[in-house]
Amino acid sequence: MSINVIGTGAYLPPKVVTNQELATMLDISPEWIERRTGIKERRFATEDTLLSMAVKASLKALENFDKNVDFIVAHSSSVEESFPSLSSSIAKELGIKPKLAFDLVSGCTGFLQALLTASSAMEQFNLNTALVVASEHLSKHLDFSDRDTAIIFGDGAGALLLEKSTGNDFIIGYDLGTMVERKDSLSLKAGTTSKIKMRGTEVFRFAVRALTRSIENSLKKAGIGPEELDFIIPHQSNSRILESANKILQIPEEKIISHLTYYGNTGSASIPIAIDLATREGKLQQGQKILFTSYGAGLSWTSLLVEWRTGKEEWSCILETVFQGY
Amino acid sequence: MSINVIGTGAYLPPKVVTNQELATMLDISPEWIERRTGIKERRFATEDTLLSMAVKASLKALENFDKNVDFIVAHSSSVEESFPSLSSSIAKELGIKPKLAFDLVSGCTGFLQALLTASSAMEQFNLNTALVVASEHLSKHLDFSDRDTAIIFGDGAGALLLEKSTGNDFIIGYDLGTMVERKDSLSLKAGTTSKIKMRGTEVFRFAVRALTRSIENSLKKAGIGPEELDFIIPHQSNSRILESANKILQIPEEKIISHLTYYGNTGSASIPIAIDLATREGKLQQGQKILFTSYGAGLSWTSLLVEWRTGKEEWSCILETVFQGY
Repeated sequence: MSINVIGTGAYLPPKVVTNQELATMLDISPEWIERRTGIKERRFATEDTLLSMAVKASLKALENFDKNVDFIVAHSSSVEESFPSLSSSIAKELGIKPKLAFDLVSGCTGFLQALLTASSAMEQFNLNTALVVASEHLSKHLDFSDRDTAIIFGDGAGALLLEKSTGNDFIIGYDLGTMVERKDSLSLKAGTTSKIKMRGTEVFRFAVRALTRSIENSLKKAGIGPEELDFIIPHQSNSRILESANKILQIPEEKIISHLTYYGNTGSASIPIAIDLATREGKLQQGQKILFTSYGAGLSWTSLLVEWRTGKEEWSCILETVFQGY
Repeated sequence: MSINVIGTGAYLPPKVVTNQELATMLDISPEWIERRTGIKERRFATEDTLLSMAVKASLKALENFDKNVDFIVAHSSSVEESFPSLSSSIAKELGIKPKLAFDLVSGCTGFLQALLTASSAMEQFNLNTALVVASEHLSKHLDFSDRDTAIIFGDGAGALLLEKSTGNDFIIGYDLGTMVERKDSLSLKAGTTSKIKMRGTEVFRFAVRALTRSIENSLKKAGIGPEELDFIIPHQSNSRILESANKILQIPEEKIISHLTYYGNTGSASIPIAIDLATREGKLQQGQKILFTSYGAGLSWTSLLVEWRTGKEEWSCILETVFQGY
């Protein structure tokens, strides 16, 4: 399935919460938080809602697009409504009339699962454009007496706008898996007063192993070596997970895109936020091989290896050809 | 995408709630409920949970299958957990280790959206088998002072087991659409204490129009006339919606499969429950053209026209050929 990513967007709420603020609440030191997680600060939504963050990220993804969107698929790890879907609410706010709109529920692997859902449904059901959104309001669900979870999570949203294209496949490798027998090690009941529960050591061990194997498997399935990868964008949860995995993988640090230090773990939104930041910094370019890899509740992992396509180079090629005639 | 439906399952909790019981609570007559909805009784889960109903329906769908399932996609309109997904919990209970497991959130159109998601992801991501489940525990979310909603809904679950096949497409027509500007006319907040809110007249009008048009569009896209349809399995919400739509459509009554009278509106589970009941009654046969059509929260509609394939006839043909040799 050939897809161009014709728009990216991210939104981080303005309220910065430093390690110092959390350290005082939790009776620990700010240095301990940073050493343990790699996080210096994160954002908490105070005025924003799950929906307003989703809409603001989507608006950025749509900034150069004025047509209708055929399919909206949204994911959140902090589900607020059983129905209508968050996707329907995003569509209404944006004045879009999609043919299809539903949400996924999965946890931190949810954005990549929404991306693979969009990619395959676009092909089979004649949907030309899709907006894939992840929005997280996890600060509402933090137990500020629990050091394991309160120091990790932050709020934010990210979105990608996809358009059907012709030519090479967008997704050139993938690896999917679950360890459902450990499903209770990371959980959050739906509803406003619930708190995230995590068995830290169990999740940490799973994450290191899932990350290492899933990167290896994705490369193997695509038949490429790690040196051929331009970037890895992992789920941003904890720098120590990545460091542990990278002892085996040995991926050069400049190939790993991370914003963990300043935004913390923004759940399923962490990958689309990273994609948008890297796009706006000019890092991501047409034709690059980029590996998105995520792990989390389920327990589950999902990795997608893509050949990055924005459609822009094709246009510049056409324009160049046209202008060369003059 | 060629798919065989190799298993179907349904579960209805044992507790029957008659119109008489509801009429007493709501200070109305049992006849008024039946006249208004076509429903005589429904089931309420008292001992069962959302998960136990999903597992019991899935076990029936899996009764003749002893391999692993690659993909589980579950839908519920009464979301209980933000993570892990209901699919992960179903997998754990069944002792399955899927490669991919996530939930959809959409409302009454959710089962057909899960079915289209499974169909397209199976093709693109090399998933050979998929279990598509809908489970509803809507009785928990009824306001027993609201006549419009309390008389309609019931609990239950349904499941289909799909296997990749070769040959003709399974889905031969479809129609998808939303009316997101009316999203607030049917809503339920996630969490245990929330109640369903419905603007009855608005939803009724939408449903009649969506049902009529979506059936017409699905047939048109598949290039077949209504006389070529073997069965229609509509979302079971209210007999008056179907009657109003059928004033225009004129579909013979024997082609419409319904269990509304005895189970009420079981939300997204209504279609897979109907499929299972019709399969066990011997109504659904290989090669038939069957139209599934749903409408609900979003507001949204989703119709899928399928050529029913169980894979069984292929085997009986092979066996017949083999035995003819002796």
